[in-house]
Amino acid sequence: MNIAILTFEGFNEIDSFVSHHILTRVDIKDWNVAIACPSETVTSTGGIRVSAQQPLEFANDADAVLFGGSPRSRQIVEDRAIMSRLKLDPKRQLIGSQCAGAWFLAKLGLLATQPVCTSLKSRAGLEAMGIRVLDRPFVASGNVASAGGCLASPYLAAWVISRLVGREAAENALRIVAPVGEKAQYVATVLGVVWPLATADAERVA
Amino acid sequence: MNIAILTFEGFNEIDSFVSHHILTRVDIKDWNVAIACPSETVTSTGGIRVSAQQPLEFANDADAVLFGGSPRSRQIVEDRAIMSRLKLDPKRQLIGSQCAGAWFLAKLGLLATQPVCTSLKSRAGLEAMGIRVLDRPFVASGNVASAGGCLASPYLAAWVISRLVGREAAENALRIVAPVGEKAQYVATVLGVVWPLATADAERVA
Repeated sequence: MNIAILTFEGFNEIDSFVSHHILTRVDIKDWNVAIACPSETVTSTGGIRVSAQQPLEFANDADAVLFGGSPRSRQIVEDRAIMSRLKLDPKRQLIGSQCAGAWFLAKLGLLATQPVCTSLKSRAGLEAMGIRVLDRPFVASGNVASAGGCLASPYLAAWVISRLVGREAAENALRIVAPVGEKAQYVATVLGVVWPLATADAERVA
Repeated sequence: MNIAILTFEGFNEIDSFVSHHILTRVDIKDWNVAIACPSETVTSTGGIRVSAQQPLEFANDADAVLFGGSPRSRQIVEDRAIMSRLKLDPKRQLIGSQCAGAWFLAKLGLLATQPVCTSLKSRAGLEAMGIRVLDRPFVASGNVASAGGCLASPYLAAWVISRLVGREAAENALRIVAPVGEKAQYVATVLGVVWPLATADAERVA
């Protein structure tokens, strides 16, 4: 299984790294999670420079692709030099977005018939395109999911694990990262939202 | 105000970057948050290579110093080449730790008279040193604080902001990153824990 966390210039660290970290906590063979970028390094709005683990094209054959957000997401989706490198297909891949990453879902035409969760900053612009934005942390339908608010990243990671591995693996990964003394409640809250959407999806796309 | 997030080889991305991101959301003049490392780059256990924004010595004159965790923290605190570069003082600095970062607080002698919050993996080793470990996400006493469980990072960041700026700034920063649809509840939960400890501290060290 290959999972790509697409990370662009100006990226939000929480968006990309929280999902990445939770996903790396899945302990099965041939489970490969990578930060994939359009260039060798990318720098966050907060000035953090990271090296790409994979080029952008890694996403094209990945089992799951997550778009991290950036204040520049809305501009980046208009950059043909970047977007032409992506050949994604929601029929054979899980595709998700975090916060402003929703601009990528919109650009790829994945929000024509389903609502999205995104950051408060991206909301008005997406609504102006006729996209329905929910006042919730997470939504999924079929193979497409989105999360809104940086700290909703664990919902998105839990969805990927639920879909690709199963509930127990998602519970284990969430339990590792949850605050001490709040672990059982945290896992129950996140999976209470994610699991029904993950299993409804599995039936639909089966 | 300078805030150092000390980040070492093998670092946990959530530990270092969630606090960093939340702290960068404080919108006041001369507020400088930096990932400080012992070398030009450090690589996480999950294979993420980041460039240091500042050398380790940046911490020595910082107003707040946060130790991110790493599976290697217990070994790193025995590395004199690294530890001799740190000259910290809880009388003039806020000092905090995330998860395995608690090994640094222990090594610096800051846990002789106060309990700590840490990851489940670090708990037994610290208890064997006679340190009291709490089954809670966050604790602070005086100028020393600690958080346990990666996703307890917002407690630690909120404590720094509460102490250095104030409650409204902490609320604003938390609200930006909280999940959509859960923002008011999230801010209330975190500050419900942090604020009483931050204000008790302020009185004590005044």
